[in-house]
Amino acid sequence: MNQDLRRERAAASFNPELLTHVLDGSPENTRRRREIENLILNDPDFQHEDLNFLTRSQRYEVAVRKSANMVKKMREFGIADPEEIMWFKKVHLVNFVEPVGLNFSMFIPTLLNQGTTAQQEKWLLSSKGLQIIGTYAQTEMGHGTHLRGLETTATYDPETQEFILNSPTVTSIKWWPGGLGKTSNHAIVLAQLITKGKCYGLHAFIVPIREIGTHKPLPGITVGDIGPKFGYDEMDNGYLKMDNYRIPRENMLMKYAQVKPDGTYVKPVSNKLTYGTMVFVRSFLVGEAARSLSKACTIAIRYSAVRHQSEIKPGEPEPQILDFQTQQYKLFPLLATAYAFQFVGAYMKETYHRINEDIGQGDLSELPELHALTAGLKAFTSWTTNAAIEACRMACGGHGYSHCSGLPNIYVTFTPTCTFEGENTVMMLQTARFLMKSYDQVHAGKLVCGMVSYLNGLPTQRIQPQQVAVWPAVVDIDSPDSLTEAYKLRAARLVEVAAKNLQNEVIHRKSKEVAWNLTSVDLVRASEAHCHYVVVKLFSEKLLKIEDKSVHAVLRNLCLLYCLYGISQKAGDFLQGGIMTESQITQVNQRIKELLIAIRPDAVALVDAFDFQDVTLGSVLGRYDGNVYENLFEWAKKSPLNKSEVHASYFKYLKPLQSKL
Amino acid sequence: MNQDLRRERAAASFNPELLTHVLDGSPENTRRRREIENLILNDPDFQHEDLNFLTRSQRYEVAVRKSANMVKKMREFGIADPEEIMWFKKVHLVNFVEPVGLNFSMFIPTLLNQGTTAQQEKWLLSSKGLQIIGTYAQTEMGHGTHLRGLETTATYDPETQEFILNSPTVTSIKWWPGGLGKTSNHAIVLAQLITKGKCYGLHAFIVPIREIGTHKPLPGITVGDIGPKFGYDEMDNGYLKMDNYRIPRENMLMKYAQVKPDGTYVKPVSNKLTYGTMVFVRSFLVGEAARSLSKACTIAIRYSAVRHQSEIKPGEPEPQILDFQTQQYKLFPLLATAYAFQFVGAYMKETYHRINEDIGQGDLSELPELHALTAGLKAFTSWTTNAAIEACRMACGGHGYSHCSGLPNIYVTFTPTCTFEGENTVMMLQTARFLMKSYDQVHAGKLVCGMVSYLNGLPTQRIQPQQVAVWPAVVDIDSPDSLTEAYKLRAARLVEVAAKNLQNEVIHRKSKEVAWNLTSVDLVRASEAHCHYVVVKLFSEKLLKIEDKSVHAVLRNLCLLYCLYGISQKAGDFLQGGIMTESQITQVNQRIKELLIAIRPDAVALVDAFDFQDVTLGSVLGRYDGNVYENLFEWAKKSPLNKSEVHASYFKYLKPLQSKL
Repeated sequence: MNQDLRRERAAASFNPELLTHVLDGSPENTRRRREIENLILNDPDFQHEDLNFLTRSQRYEVAVRKSANMVKKMREFGIADPEEIMWFKKVHLVNFVEPVGLNFSMFIPTLLNQGTTAQQEKWLLSSKGLQIIGTYAQTEMGHGTHLRGLETTATYDPETQEFILNSPTVTSIKWWPGGLGKTSNHAIVLAQLITKGKCYGLHAFIVPIREIGTHKPLPGITVGDIGPKFGYDEMDNGYLKMDNYRIPRENMLMKYAQVKPDGTYVKPVSNKLTYGTMVFVRSFLVGEAARSLSKACTIAIRYSAVRHQSEIKPGEPEPQILDFQTQQYKLFPLLATAYAFQFVGAYMKETYHRINEDIGQGDLSELPELHALTAGLKAFTSWTTNAAIEACRMACGGHGYSHCSGLPNIYVTFTPTCTFEGENTVMMLQTARFLMKSYDQVHAGKLVCGMVSYLNGLPTQRIQPQQVAVWPAVVDIDSPDSLTEAYKLRAARLVEVAAKNLQNEVIHRKSKEVAWNLTSVDLVRASEAHCHYVVVKLFSEKLLKIEDKSVHAVLRNLCLLYCLYGISQKAGDFLQGGIMTESQITQVNQRIKELLIAIRPDAVALVDAFDFQDVTLGSVLGRYDGNVYENLFEWAKKSPLNKSEVHASYFKYLKPLQSKL
Repeated sequence: MNQDLRRERAAASFNPELLTHVLDGSPENTRRRREIENLILNDPDFQHEDLNFLTRSQRYEVAVRKSANMVKKMREFGIADPEEIMWFKKVHLVNFVEPVGLNFSMFIPTLLNQGTTAQQEKWLLSSKGLQIIGTYAQTEMGHGTHLRGLETTATYDPETQEFILNSPTVTSIKWWPGGLGKTSNHAIVLAQLITKGKCYGLHAFIVPIREIGTHKPLPGITVGDIGPKFGYDEMDNGYLKMDNYRIPRENMLMKYAQVKPDGTYVKPVSNKLTYGTMVFVRSFLVGEAARSLSKACTIAIRYSAVRHQSEIKPGEPEPQILDFQTQQYKLFPLLATAYAFQFVGAYMKETYHRINEDIGQGDLSELPELHALTAGLKAFTSWTTNAAIEACRMACGGHGYSHCSGLPNIYVTFTPTCTFEGENTVMMLQTARFLMKSYDQVHAGKLVCGMVSYLNGLPTQRIQPQQVAVWPAVVDIDSPDSLTEAYKLRAARLVEVAAKNLQNEVIHRKSKEVAWNLTSVDLVRASEAHCHYVVVKLFSEKLLKIEDKSVHAVLRNLCLLYCLYGISQKAGDFLQGGIMTESQITQVNQRIKELLIAIRPDAVALVDAFDFQDVTLGSVLGRYDGNVYENLFEWAKKSPLNKSEVHASYFKYLKPLQSKL
């Protein structure tokens, strides 16, 4: 093992294995996770050349092969429950993008949620067996966020008892669905349902797009790959254009809404449950943010422990770059953030399951807050993680730019999270809508509960927004609880500022909607402050549950760093309204520097506790054994450009120029 | 032309052509720039398939072909002066990475600067004619920032009058030089010179690495490509390992230092001029930041004018997304930043040329400040631009993630600027060193001049850093001059905080160097504030030179937005020390929203004024004609995955699974 890493590990103040158990939930979970990981990762069927050396078409091929192997393994292991499949794949093969993924994560669940029993009988078995390879086609070239704007039509023809599907404009072409371009032979298509001359809005239809056996596109179907992207090289995100394409009436998913053979439309009783799916996916993405950031931190911190550069004292050997305060200041707040998000992710998962049980028992009371919270936290954690992965990459200097670091791939695979499953700004505004509603309730004399209960304490009679926080707050910068209180006051103040600005705009503008738009910057700011408070609160509360003293001590420092770093970055928010004083902010900046020193000896152990296997990290710089430079040289030699000593381009283009001299 | 863009252009309050003249420096410059651009861009020799559709090896080949064509054209047009060559290529083919680039940008200039007349006679003609294809090999696998740490050795052997070059360790392997991997046959290698048993530090040597004619690596030379990176696919960044590789004594560049035939070392008289090259490259990079950000803004703002999505008022048609306040708040401050950096870039260029003349006349007095300023501004503008390009990309939603937007390529091509030619944190600390020196001078009773002259006004007797700014500042948030004053006070305060913290650490620690490290977070903060002040100041001063009233009005709004947005983001800095009051910060946030409304009608014209040709933008979303969706569909159809209807992977991996059911 690398000398530096060995020394770092020996000097840690705590046992990282115990922290791994905290992250996994229990020692038993850790054991089981490793067991399954090794099952897959040691399987020769999953070995392949470094994807970085392959062309996109080769990467797609590797991904299809891995997808196929995965399906075989799942059959072998008898894994069939959709949630278990998702867990099996996502947890153990993070960052692996697979073309048949949407068959299991979207096609089958949608069929189960929205299909009748007869429909499930017809399609479920063959989609589980990949006779049907399905995907989910919602987004169109011209329409993403705004579902009502989707243009694809499904017009019912009672004579033949068929729906006629059409992509009437170029903007209506389905665009982006994963696996649609080359892999799938079916898609669940969202389209505007028209029957008896009337449009009833979006409904889901099962649409065959390629012939089973030949895999050729069916007549009336134009389908293909949407072209190269920033990342997701292995994924054939696709387009789908339909021209008077007919499907049987029975292909409309009819568990809720129905179209009778004569064309009569039957309204759904309720569709609150689709709400639940969104909440599930978004809360899952919070966990993904935590995992991606943890990986990036692992690579950057291990490399910073191995890399020696420059000098602190002249004449002495080059120090580990992790000893530079600027490097610590770049990385340790991100490490603290990774831990914060790990705990938020675990909380979201628990909460989702708890509320899901309530829903099962008909209790939907907590759903609105959970919906608002997942929307905001999805945006908050993904924006933060997005910037943080790049900060980790750049903290690795030149080598961070090489694919050897693994960091560019982590970034390009993660960054769509800011956009998909609800664009982040839109998400923040959804949270804001809930905050404004809660604020109005409090003003109407009602109490609100849950994470927004701090609004109950808002004094009501004030003129200037900046005078809001007159609470006698004496923040103790060494207490996570007191800091949580400070974040709470900041959130309360920014919610109130947004609410008052919104009220002012409503007075001056004709329409409430225009007023909303003209306050949206304040609304996003309020949501961010609310989410930041929630993260701080969950981190602080988690500390109470840590039994091991040494683990508790190191997590407490990380929690303090997370809180204080946020205050330092947003000092204006804490000064305004008098939550903190100028001299406290100065103390915060000083305390941050002390915490960097305190965390330094444990930094490597803290990333070891995330327990990523080398192959999962996909990084030369972050390998557990850390023989960075030898590994790097071996890796580089395999570059495709090195296949021959002299590249053909020389003889083709450069030599002729030389002889002309 | 796209209807939305047509309407936007018709509604602009000013003539973008006049603003283009401002950016180019004069109408004549604009004319000449366009002339040369068209000369190249309309040349069929430069046409090629979209690079996004090619493999890395194909991209490298296209780049070599274009490089070769470029050399031919330069011969045709008789362009031979190195600076003109750089201008010719960089201005007109922005973002084009070319493997033989370093021959012209580094090999030849270094030969001219550091070679004797005899050496120039020997190598200059053949390197200009590409018989010699040269690169510049400095960075090693284990050593970047810290030049003294480089390990490559050049040991003089007086018996044969040769230098023996060695890469003694894996960390000493030369790593990263552009064009080194496959293209070059010579490199200027930096190595530790050893003669008569003594090491004299780094010197430059001309090292043949491949045989001319066969292009095969010479015996003793191991050379190749370092593997795939985040970007720069077309560039064969390379490695070079030398084993007892001998070169004649005359291959050491000897204009300054010399090694006599008997091995006697002759010291250089002065090497301040290498200082000048660094300053030149870094000031050039400030201009690159401006250009890259301007391109990203052009794409994002044009797309936002064309894209219709969601709703502001229910029932009305989907608005242009540029009408959402959140979208304006994402993009307009970046647009303002692009203009700010354009003016800073122009200033840096002028200043460099002015000071270069002074240097020619032996006057080096302004060099230290210029050096400090370019270091800091290189870091400040590249960090800001780096984040801003990604913000532009994400403001384009899903399509921003596709290579169709052109934005991923702009990002990956720009982002190394944060690392190369002086890693940004290191740069900020260099600026800080100058600031601390200036602060000490003021404290010693001397006056300092130039951009740091504000330090002269610092009251000297204070105890608490947070009490620094007691100037009676009444900031007028509608006056660029007054806002510049506020930025000046902030810089002064943060320089003083850093200086005092440094003094405190010096008192408590044994060594000055350790104290420096333990204050470096404050030092970087001070440098950032200083650079921010300089940018604000240059933008404000530029306004005075704008004659056209309507252009002046729109630039003034951008300048105000740039200033106020910075204050809003760093509100804590302006509240601390009482530079601004809480109620002023509230006003700032309000005023920003008003400015967004004011700038909105001119947004498209403001990016049109950057005057990028469609081909230079490399973007479907940002095309001048703006037929976004049709163009996008045409582009996607050309994706290599669409070459056949059915991908071979289906029959290889998926069909067998299906039949097993």
